[in-house]
Amino acid sequence: MTPEREQKLLAVLQRRQPDLTLIAEQVHKSRNIAALIRNCDAAGIAEVQVVKPKEGYQQYRGTALGSDRWVDTALHDTLDLAIEGVRARGMKVYAAHFSEQAVPYREVDYTEPCAIVMGAEKEGISPRAAEQADRHIIIPMQGVVSSLNVSTAAGIILAEVIDQRLKAGFYDRARMPVAWIARKMFEARYP
Amino acid sequence: MTPEREQKLLAVLQRRQPDLTLIAEQVHKSRNIAALIRNCDAAGIAEVQVVKPKEGYQQYRGTALGSDRWVDTALHDTLDLAIEGVRARGMKVYAAHFSEQAVPYREVDYTEPCAIVMGAEKEGISPRAAEQADRHIIIPMQGVVSSLNVSTAAGIILAEVIDQRLKAGFYDRARMPVAWIARKMFEARYP
Ligand SMILES: C[S@@+](CC[C@H](N)C(=O)[O-])C[C@H]1O[C@@H](n2cnc3c(N)ncnc32)[C@H](O)[C@@H]1O
Ligand SMILES: C[S@@+](CC[C@H](N)C(=O)[O-])C[C@H]1O[C@@H](n2cnc3c(N)ncnc32)[C@H](O)[C@@H]1O
Repeated sequence: MTPEREQKLLAVLQRRQPDLTLIAEQVHKSRNIAALIRNCDAAGIAEVQVVKPKEGYQQYRGTALGSDRWVDTALHDTLDLAIEGVRARGMKVYAAHFSEQAVPYREVDYTEPCAIVMGAEKEGISPRAAEQADRHIIIPMQGVVSSLNVSTAAGIILAEVIDQRLKAGFYDRARMPVAWIARKMFEARYP
Repeated sequence: MTPEREQKLLAVLQRRQPDLTLIAEQVHKSRNIAALIRNCDAAGIAEVQVVKPKEGYQQYRGTALGSDRWVDTALHDTLDLAIEGVRARGMKVYAAHFSEQAVPYREVDYTEPCAIVMGAEKEGISPRAAEQADRHIIIPMQGVVSSLNVSTAAGIILAEVIDQRLKAGFYDRARMPVAWIARKMFEARYP
């Protein structure tokens, strides 16, 4: 690695957010998973939670553009295990879900530790995930079609997360443990 | 059409925005065009401008989910023709483009009549489009990968447009000419 590349990587790793993640619930298309990971990278998510689709998990391919090297994927057999994991790390759970209780996504405070649950392409968020979530959030839409593509929806919510966390200075100081940053730098040097 | 469906459609058509559009510059993948159109529908765009990619335009397929029935596509042979068209309708031109002059996308006033130019998957915005644009806008990113997928980027910018236009009451009253709304209702009844 060149010193410039090393410096760029360190800067990125220092912007990673220990208290932010995304849970992909039964997202089937590997292309959508790849796009979700690319969006997670942009928001500084260090690890994305993937709940294995019932018919099995295919390794994603497509347009992650290498972001998957820098965003770890934690695979979970069930949604409950994914939620348990993020709760153990003190995170709130926000489900991107059309429901009576849903609030517009910009009304939520994303500087709190949080995990955002995104639903499957056809079925959306499961009843179980809807029940477990602390809040339901929606992106207001003005057209005929009733939902956005899952990765676009995630991108929009994460853009709001970035905005709030930029304002709060969360990307200005290293927030990950130094041991984690050092390990990642080491792995980058000796892949 | 059932009366409920007719009512729903009328409500959507009344939310269409005469002074808002998107220009897709040389976006090659039909899947990305379909996703852009779905995002345009969500923001109330009545007509999207597509600049034909050099190697020819394939009709999009994929995940427009029928939004393409409700968002018209204007095909242009060149970018200049697309820009001339929107300027003739009094629109400002904002290019989603990484450049020195670019401003964060939330700093722009999208209640002004405007067209948002999105660049090609690989090449991005052309030098010509960059030069013609009134402003360059960027979405701040915190990760390793240097760009978002074009339809995700469009979705994020359009979510800000929706937010500003919702606050300005632009979706609360019919803004399209009554003749246009009537024609669309007619076409829906007799497809
Ligand atoms: C294609 S949508 C699923 C649509 C499904 N038919 C439903 O009714 O939930 C896939 C996922 O994207 C997210 N999503 C899409 N549009 C959204 C919106 N406007 N607000 C919040 N989340 C959205 C949700 O997590 C949803 O489960
Ligand atoms: C995949 S990107 C093109 C990347 C290209 N290599 C470049 O440097 O412009 C496709 C298009 O999406 C839009 N885009 C992607 N990420 C963006 C961001 N963070 N801010 C603004 N526009 C973005 C731009 O219109 C861009 O031309």
